[in-house]
Amino acid sequence: MASRVIPVEVFDLVIFGGTGDLARRKILPGLYLRWLAGQIPAEARIIGAARGELDDQGFRDFVAASIEEFVARDRKDKAAIKGFLERLHYVAIDVTGEKGWKDLKALGREGAVQAFYFSVAPALFGAIAERLRSYEIAGAEARIVVEKPFGRDLASARALNATLAQHFEEGQIYRIDHYLGKETVQNLMAVRFANILFEPLWKSEYIDHVQITVAETVGVEGRGAYYDKSGAMRDMVQNHIMQLLCLIAMEPPYHFDPDAVRDEKLKVIRALDPVKPEDIVRGQYLAGAGEGSYLEHSGNKDSRTESYIALKVHISNWRWKGTPFYLRTGKRLRARESEIAITFREPPHSIFDDHSGWRENVLVIRLQPDEGMNLKVMIKEPGPGGMRLTQVPLDMSFAEALANTMEDVPDAYERLIMDVIRGNQTLFMRGDEVEAAWAWTDPIIQGWEARGDRPQGYDPGTSGPEDALMLMHRDGRRWRGIGQ
Amino acid sequence: MASRVIPVEVFDLVIFGGTGDLARRKILPGLYLRWLAGQIPAEARIIGAARGELDDQGFRDFVAASIEEFVARDRKDKAAIKGFLERLHYVAIDVTGEKGWKDLKALGREGAVQAFYFSVAPALFGAIAERLRSYEIAGAEARIVVEKPFGRDLASARALNATLAQHFEEGQIYRIDHYLGKETVQNLMAVRFANILFEPLWKSEYIDHVQITVAETVGVEGRGAYYDKSGAMRDMVQNHIMQLLCLIAMEPPYHFDPDAVRDEKLKVIRALDPVKPEDIVRGQYLAGAGEGSYLEHSGNKDSRTESYIALKVHISNWRWKGTPFYLRTGKRLRARESEIAITFREPPHSIFDDHSGWRENVLVIRLQPDEGMNLKVMIKEPGPGGMRLTQVPLDMSFAEALANTMEDVPDAYERLIMDVIRGNQTLFMRGDEVEAAWAWTDPIIQGWEARGDRPQGYDPGTSGPEDALMLMHRDGRRWRGIGQ
Repeated sequence: MASRVIPVEVFDLVIFGGTGDLARRKILPGLYLRWLAGQIPAEARIIGAARGELDDQGFRDFVAASIEEFVARDRKDKAAIKGFLERLHYVAIDVTGEKGWKDLKALGREGAVQAFYFSVAPALFGAIAERLRSYEIAGAEARIVVEKPFGRDLASARALNATLAQHFEEGQIYRIDHYLGKETVQNLMAVRFANILFEPLWKSEYIDHVQITVAETVGVEGRGAYYDKSGAMRDMVQNHIMQLLCLIAMEPPYHFDPDAVRDEKLKVIRALDPVKPEDIVRGQYLAGAGEGSYLEHSGNKDSRTESYIALKVHISNWRWKGTPFYLRTGKRLRARESEIAITFREPPHSIFDDHSGWRENVLVIRLQPDEGMNLKVMIKEPGPGGMRLTQVPLDMSFAEALANTMEDVPDAYERLIMDVIRGNQTLFMRGDEVEAAWAWTDPIIQGWEARGDRPQGYDPGTSGPEDALMLMHRDGRRWRGIGQ
Repeated sequence: MASRVIPVEVFDLVIFGGTGDLARRKILPGLYLRWLAGQIPAEARIIGAARGELDDQGFRDFVAASIEEFVARDRKDKAAIKGFLERLHYVAIDVTGEKGWKDLKALGREGAVQAFYFSVAPALFGAIAERLRSYEIAGAEARIVVEKPFGRDLASARALNATLAQHFEEGQIYRIDHYLGKETVQNLMAVRFANILFEPLWKSEYIDHVQITVAETVGVEGRGAYYDKSGAMRDMVQNHIMQLLCLIAMEPPYHFDPDAVRDEKLKVIRALDPVKPEDIVRGQYLAGAGEGSYLEHSGNKDSRTESYIALKVHISNWRWKGTPFYLRTGKRLRARESEIAITFREPPHSIFDDHSGWRENVLVIRLQPDEGMNLKVMIKEPGPGGMRLTQVPLDMSFAEALANTMEDVPDAYERLIMDVIRGNQTLFMRGDEVEAAWAWTDPIIQGWEARGDRPQGYDPGTSGPEDALMLMHRDGRRWRGIGQ
């Protein structure tokens, strides 16, 4: 079975911030790979728009260098690169001034899907949106793509939404969260809703608890001053981890379409209980092995910003009452690893004289480093010695039958940009979702600020602060190992 | 993980019919393999007892030849074979007379588990049992092992049970059905009852139907006259297939022990509905490609005995009402294959615009040619083209983690004989089970005899008679392919 590629419609994609870091590392190499896969039609155009004084050729040289640096050797095809570069154009533009906008307007044409990627600071979203309208560049069907951070609290998120809403309908706004573009996240939807096997078990009666982990090995070196204004709660929990939690916890949508899915996600966020102070653990990494501490990296010796957070979260609805969700994310941990682990309850009664120690089934959805799923089940240990049990992992997602197609599977950015062109908002956040997530997040942050809580120090290269272990231990549970 | 071997206690195993075909092909090579694996202690003795005038050395030569013929090359170890042969003894005996019984008595000793394997025609069971008592050979804890056929109807099975019961307690009688010794059959118990994942789904609400297939490629050549008195219903359905059906359908036993498990199996047999004539299809293979027909092989030109049977069976209890069990077995079919396929219902609603055609999950338990399980699940087809579904099989039983231990896994006879020595009756049929199975079987056979039904001819090398296809088609279902 080959991975099928269905070309998208002809499009013009304008990338504001087209020479920025995200464009260079992710957006442009990703678009090249979609071109290589045959998904981008020859009439499509990709237009870099940024402050720098480049011409088309200068931008093509820039993109050629980005492909050289960020695309794997075996995917570099000279003819394909040449063809892709011919799709590229450039407009030098001042997004808060008037320069370049008429040039961008002049590039307009009929019959192509219009998309505008705001790969710039959120403070600039309003200026760009306003000019796309005032210069009559964006048509009635134009789509805009915005990146996180989408606000730093409810008030700022509302203001940002309101600004965009002055110029674009909600159905035109694509708020990107690259976690939702991962193959395995989508596969989770297929596993839950295209099989009868899982949905009857997908509730408190059968699920003991859920763990969501996003662990990083890097610290905040280089961007410490920026990070110190944010912290792990704003940087990771409010957006990525919240989205994963929603996909695990949501009711079956009536259809796999944008509003049906997002309505269900919104219901989950609104059903989240406030988090008690004792169910929150914040940490800051200490110095270690020649590396600086968080306090050194942030340049703020008195910082109370967390580089690690763990929370125990409850969802108050019929499905999940009694099943806690444990969330954690942090910098400078033992390994780079993102996963969701769904731990089922033990069978209510064991008929076997079983001393294996394992009793529970676990469904693990790995997002990185290597995407995949596995289901831990108990089987009989092969052999003549009577009924002894052993636990084995079943590879759930990428069975051998599919192995040879996996190398063509696009990464999250590639997939999501194609979804923008196709006009499919299912994997993008709706404005009310973002606001609801902030509405839950705000009192948590305000709580620790009001109490003057200080994060607990933790050793780099470990799984985080001791209090995070205790958060689980006192419930008679434990975190899964990171990088083990 | 290595397959662990726990040695059994010291034993004396007497094999009546020790030079017969079953002993030569299965019992003795199987015992050698258990010796090779280190499961048989050096003090154990295996005593052949048969009519032939052999001495110990003669029997050892016979067994050496049987090992040579029926054990795989890489399992033949000269030193192990020599050691095994030293465990062997022989008594020339007349089981219906008096000759040899005192010799057997003289071999008796204290402190060894006593087991007597009746690898002889059922007509001889009574004579042997009586002499084991009258010569005071069998102690109070002695175990006897009997092979099928265990009766040919309810009356004869009752008589056989009554004869054995005169001399042995039910707890001493091991009625062997080698299907129950298969690794995968036991693994089915582990999968059902050591995981919380399956039991909540294991009922009519989620299972559409169950198929049990035992297909053979051989005809009845050579044993046609014998087979013609039996037929597929008596030869396969009443025992092997019935046992498989029971293990799939039974309620969770309170403990994995002999009476708890057999109580539950008995309840299933007793809950079987009588089978309507239109839910029975019988067949006889026709001649083909230089091979003779069933009528030729049986030597009975007017035979009405079936070499193929398919039945649709209902279990009248809360768990299974509404889930038919389709059973089939036959000679001269397309492939040698035994499997149980549990087809789950489709999800009640599809949220995806899915044209894959597959909708249902299937759990397949293969017993032969290669034991294993797989679970067919729907996943997202990898790739950027939106949510397309595809079905993949998950290998359930023998994950890679266990692959290198599988070669040491004993076959069914090896395992069951070790269970006899251990005194574990869980995988053996109890007398009331056998009688209940005949009580269900008798009216079915009497029905077709009373109506004078004739089996439908079918071409050899196919999946059986056309009416068997129709049995499924009229329910909107189809049989799984044989050997496909």
